[in-house]
Amino acid sequence: MASGSSNKVDDFHETSITIEGDHSTMVEIHKVCLPPNKTIFQSIKHNFSEIFFPDDPLHKFKNQKPSIKFLLGLQYFFPILQWESDYNFKLLKSDVISGLTIASLAIPQGISYAKLANLPPIHGLYSSFVPPLLYAVLGSSRHLAVGPVSIASLVMGSMLKEVVSPTEDPTLYLKLALTSTFFAGVFQTSLGLLRLGFIIDFLSKPTLTGFTAGAAVIVGLQQLKGMLGITHFTPKMQIVNVLSSVFSTTKEWSWQTVVMGMCFLIFLLATRHISIKKPRLFWISAAAPLASVILSTVLVYVLRAHTSAISTIGHLSKGLNPPSANMLSFSGTHLALAVKTGIVSGILSLTEGIAVGRTFASLRNYQIDGNKEMIAIGVMNMAGSCTSCYVTTGSFSRSAVNFNAGAQTAVSNIVMAATVLITLLFLLPLFYFTPNVILAAIIITAVIGLINYQEVIKFWRVDKFDFMTCLIAFFGVLVFSVQMGLAIAVGVSIFKILMNVTRPTTMVLGNIPGTQIFQNVGRYGDAKRVPSFFILSIESPICFANSAYLQERILRWVREEEERILANKEQDMKTIVLDLTAVTAIDTNGLEAIVEIRKMLDKRSYKLVLVNPVGQVMEKLETSRTLELFGEKGLYLTVGEAIADISKRFKIEV
Amino acid sequence: MASGSSNKVDDFHETSITIEGDHSTMVEIHKVCLPPNKTIFQSIKHNFSEIFFPDDPLHKFKNQKPSIKFLLGLQYFFPILQWESDYNFKLLKSDVISGLTIASLAIPQGISYAKLANLPPIHGLYSSFVPPLLYAVLGSSRHLAVGPVSIASLVMGSMLKEVVSPTEDPTLYLKLALTSTFFAGVFQTSLGLLRLGFIIDFLSKPTLTGFTAGAAVIVGLQQLKGMLGITHFTPKMQIVNVLSSVFSTTKEWSWQTVVMGMCFLIFLLATRHISIKKPRLFWISAAAPLASVILSTVLVYVLRAHTSAISTIGHLSKGLNPPSANMLSFSGTHLALAVKTGIVSGILSLTEGIAVGRTFASLRNYQIDGNKEMIAIGVMNMAGSCTSCYVTTGSFSRSAVNFNAGAQTAVSNIVMAATVLITLLFLLPLFYFTPNVILAAIIITAVIGLINYQEVIKFWRVDKFDFMTCLIAFFGVLVFSVQMGLAIAVGVSIFKILMNVTRPTTMVLGNIPGTQIFQNVGRYGDAKRVPSFFILSIESPICFANSAYLQERILRWVREEEERILANKEQDMKTIVLDLTAVTAIDTNGLEAIVEIRKMLDKRSYKLVLVNPVGQVMEKLETSRTLELFGEKGLYLTVGEAIADISKRFKIEV
Repeated sequence: MASGSSNKVDDFHETSITIEGDHSTMVEIHKVCLPPNKTIFQSIKHNFSEIFFPDDPLHKFKNQKPSIKFLLGLQYFFPILQWESDYNFKLLKSDVISGLTIASLAIPQGISYAKLANLPPIHGLYSSFVPPLLYAVLGSSRHLAVGPVSIASLVMGSMLKEVVSPTEDPTLYLKLALTSTFFAGVFQTSLGLLRLGFIIDFLSKPTLTGFTAGAAVIVGLQQLKGMLGITHFTPKMQIVNVLSSVFSTTKEWSWQTVVMGMCFLIFLLATRHISIKKPRLFWISAAAPLASVILSTVLVYVLRAHTSAISTIGHLSKGLNPPSANMLSFSGTHLALAVKTGIVSGILSLTEGIAVGRTFASLRNYQIDGNKEMIAIGVMNMAGSCTSCYVTTGSFSRSAVNFNAGAQTAVSNIVMAATVLITLLFLLPLFYFTPNVILAAIIITAVIGLINYQEVIKFWRVDKFDFMTCLIAFFGVLVFSVQMGLAIAVGVSIFKILMNVTRPTTMVLGNIPGTQIFQNVGRYGDAKRVPSFFILSIESPICFANSAYLQERILRWVREEEERILANKEQDMKTIVLDLTAVTAIDTNGLEAIVEIRKMLDKRSYKLVLVNPVGQVMEKLETSRTLELFGEKGLYLTVGEAIADISKRFKIEV
Repeated sequence: MASGSSNKVDDFHETSITIEGDHSTMVEIHKVCLPPNKTIFQSIKHNFSEIFFPDDPLHKFKNQKPSIKFLLGLQYFFPILQWESDYNFKLLKSDVISGLTIASLAIPQGISYAKLANLPPIHGLYSSFVPPLLYAVLGSSRHLAVGPVSIASLVMGSMLKEVVSPTEDPTLYLKLALTSTFFAGVFQTSLGLLRLGFIIDFLSKPTLTGFTAGAAVIVGLQQLKGMLGITHFTPKMQIVNVLSSVFSTTKEWSWQTVVMGMCFLIFLLATRHISIKKPRLFWISAAAPLASVILSTVLVYVLRAHTSAISTIGHLSKGLNPPSANMLSFSGTHLALAVKTGIVSGILSLTEGIAVGRTFASLRNYQIDGNKEMIAIGVMNMAGSCTSCYVTTGSFSRSAVNFNAGAQTAVSNIVMAATVLITLLFLLPLFYFTPNVILAAIIITAVIGLINYQEVIKFWRVDKFDFMTCLIAFFGVLVFSVQMGLAIAVGVSIFKILMNVTRPTTMVLGNIPGTQIFQNVGRYGDAKRVPSFFILSIESPICFANSAYLQERILRWVREEEERILANKEQDMKTIVLDLTAVTAIDTNGLEAIVEIRKMLDKRSYKLVLVNPVGQVMEKLETSRTLELFGEKGLYLTVGEAIADISKRFKIEV
């Protein structure tokens, strides 16, 4: 690699170096600059804005008139105002069609997921009414369809059920569920307001994939209760308990339920399969749940004389969401449980909501603001907890159907809410004969879709550690509990980051002849070691977690290089060049390590030079006076310049 | 920067590029290589040996005869065999002198530190007898002087005292102390055997500085009991409790004790000051504690009619360490406490021992093996717990005196142990009149030395975050407790590593004219943006914790660049170059982020090219088929080659 062009040979001469040859040329050495001086206040401000405002949310407000600033501010808090002025009949038509489509999915899903959370089915419908309306006003995604989701329902159900029985003390259970929902909302809103949205980034894809698959297996197994018509079922969630409960109650199995359940399950899975194969036929799987509900209800009604063994939903009282603020309790022995459940279900629903929002935003090439979304979802849950709703968020299945049905704006959420409203006011008696087994079949179909085995295969192929994290999350959920599995997997992911820092890669660089490129000699066959130099590159920040390791490792490299030189009878090593290009940060331990390495190499009469420290590393080398130790000839901008300059001086010395 | 030399102009032409000009030349483009293929087994083996055997401890064994291998193996486990053959009278003379010097320090220190751990003073002497003998055989440091140390004594004392009172139930307390010592030994040995020594690296220097200073303040305050002659003192360790206890017991203060204590404290501090100013006079501060003990004992004995208010050590029963294996208890309600105390005091004593060992090894240019040291210290503590010793390790103050007194090998530890043996057998009655206040004065002098304010000033100057960590550890210890302070500080240090990864630096690169150097345009004034290119460099692994951030941040960079170009009416941006040189690792989330960024830039009609992925990143780009998306012209070895090749094609297209 060289610079300049053929009519710039002067430049070339000035900057060229001689590595092996004896034809000395002028060497232009570039100085390593310090970054521009910053006051403490400036650097705190910079760090603060990078941590909390990386997306620069106020950039639209710059250089605007106050009136426009006010309008932008309103639009910031109520994104509905961004598009309402351009709204027209054509958009409305698309939104009505998609709204009706998702409503047909939302009603059976709402009832089923409420059962998953061990709540009365009606709360699933309540939760598909108030939250979507609020999201339509506050949310920044145009395709997110809001309602209860399987993972959050399951987590809330399993965490609360371990302490309070939903059948023995349904009032306390409901109170706890609503209080948890409130805390979930508070937690979500606070994350958004404090701009701590990055916390959800710590749920990596492998963690979520494994966690979701584990949760799906647990939920699927729980549905055996409904599918087999068992009445006495274990309240535990662990796989061993569930299976032993299933096989110890074989006498309770009802063949009518099993037959009906299997038929509808096959029907639902078949429609799902069709929609996956031909995405244009998405409406088949979208309509299937409602069709199943209607068909099975009619069947049970017609055959009601012969199907007493099939349990049905029974009476649902008509009417709008009753206010429930009085159900929230902020004291008592179960407060800690409610807070914990709120945080876990809150963070999981947030993760799903934001991931789904981002997915569809990127398909339509707009951006959603993570922190703003958190506030919207949080407010929706806080308001929901006062109107008999439990945790809701942007649902993946519903949003996919919404998107495929051609939704253009959040108006489709309003249409869905209106349909649910009509159902709540007038259609509830129709669900009297809806068999519970059909809800179990709908849930099983939904959770099977959550097991993403292709992704797991990809982890194995691309990144063994991600694969391991995924398995740990999966088995953690199955063997311990939902929250333990999640905690372990997050711990393992963080451990991996720490291991990366604790045991950074160091590599020996060589020169690709005829160029200024220095690359790993182990990887680039044509990269050759430069005689009397030993060039090492460190690939991580140097900090307390690795400073002792790096000292040892560098000495080992030097020892091995000495042995190699001795074996090959090569020219003795004189200078060790430490390429700091990839050292992205340094702390006081790291600075001491550098001093220590220099001292030890000095004792063995090797010279150590540093190359290309990045801005903040350079700053710290300077303020800690480490640079003074190295002197003027101990720091270079590029490996090439270091070698050129030092070998020139070798010759002078000789 | 350019390559080749003046008689290699052909090379130069082949590799030169044209950035602005229109004088097209040939461009030699280097391919980015995949690293050599490794099987899963090989890469697991490589990672495993980097994590657990970075120092390659078996390298001496390579290509040796079996008999030599056996000898080396023996020497590995018993480092004493490494130097015994070269041992001579001259070395012995040095070792005897230094051994006697540290013994004169060890006896009063042993008695004082045992009091710090709330144990009978005699256990401090026991602990200066067995462990040094064992260390002399097993340890690899030649200057480490072994015995009880202030931090570990203090931590053990404070953790056990919170649950069991040493005055009300001394037998249970002693049992717990010995059991904790046993667990400390087990923990230390296991860390060494499992080669998990890097765990102590997580106690960064700022953490330790703050923690030690906090502990020193607490211990110093605790000594007010002895200095003021208070008999009813709070068992709590928190600063508020201690101070209120001091001022609520003013009636108990004994003026004789206060006068004597202050005099000796001033004497000890003065000798310490002299030795710091003139390191050659180290023996003054080394001899001062023993001199104080002798002087004060004589004083109290002579004036015994008038000094009944001064409490003394009293009767110490003569004799060697009694066996105490029967005192270890591995059941009961206090087991968890013993394990916890063992782990905390074990890790702290390990940290001190290894840090001290490393310090003196580096002064004499030899290396100690961290994992081997852990085994030595662990075995010494396990054996100690069976012979009435409590936690011991390499002590900083003693080792410094040892080193200054000219110690050459671990024989000085043996000499010290022999002196302690004589004391235990014959001299104990002499301590009957030794006043407790003198021990308090010795402890205060010792802990004042632990407050390293210069270091704190350096943290402030060099690294504000390290300064903060240090303060957090300090106040954590003062306000909460010793173990909480430590835990919080470690948490904060790890949080910093995570924040570094979560919010990595991204920077815009420009070309330094006439060279192939691309540097941060914000830092290098002469680095100029290359027209129609936008070059970004990412300075961290791309992983789950930052993939969402990086997507957002890169889009923001592009948006800001568009605005800049518009404002300055510059040439439109066509290609975005992502320099991955400092991206040291990538995971599946990171790979998806790259695909996502490419997709989003594609929608805005920008071309994205990647530059210089390191080995494992390249591997993963390949196995995940991300590279296929980029095609042949989407990956370059250097920024310069990317720009040269792409601008050549611009011209062809135009």
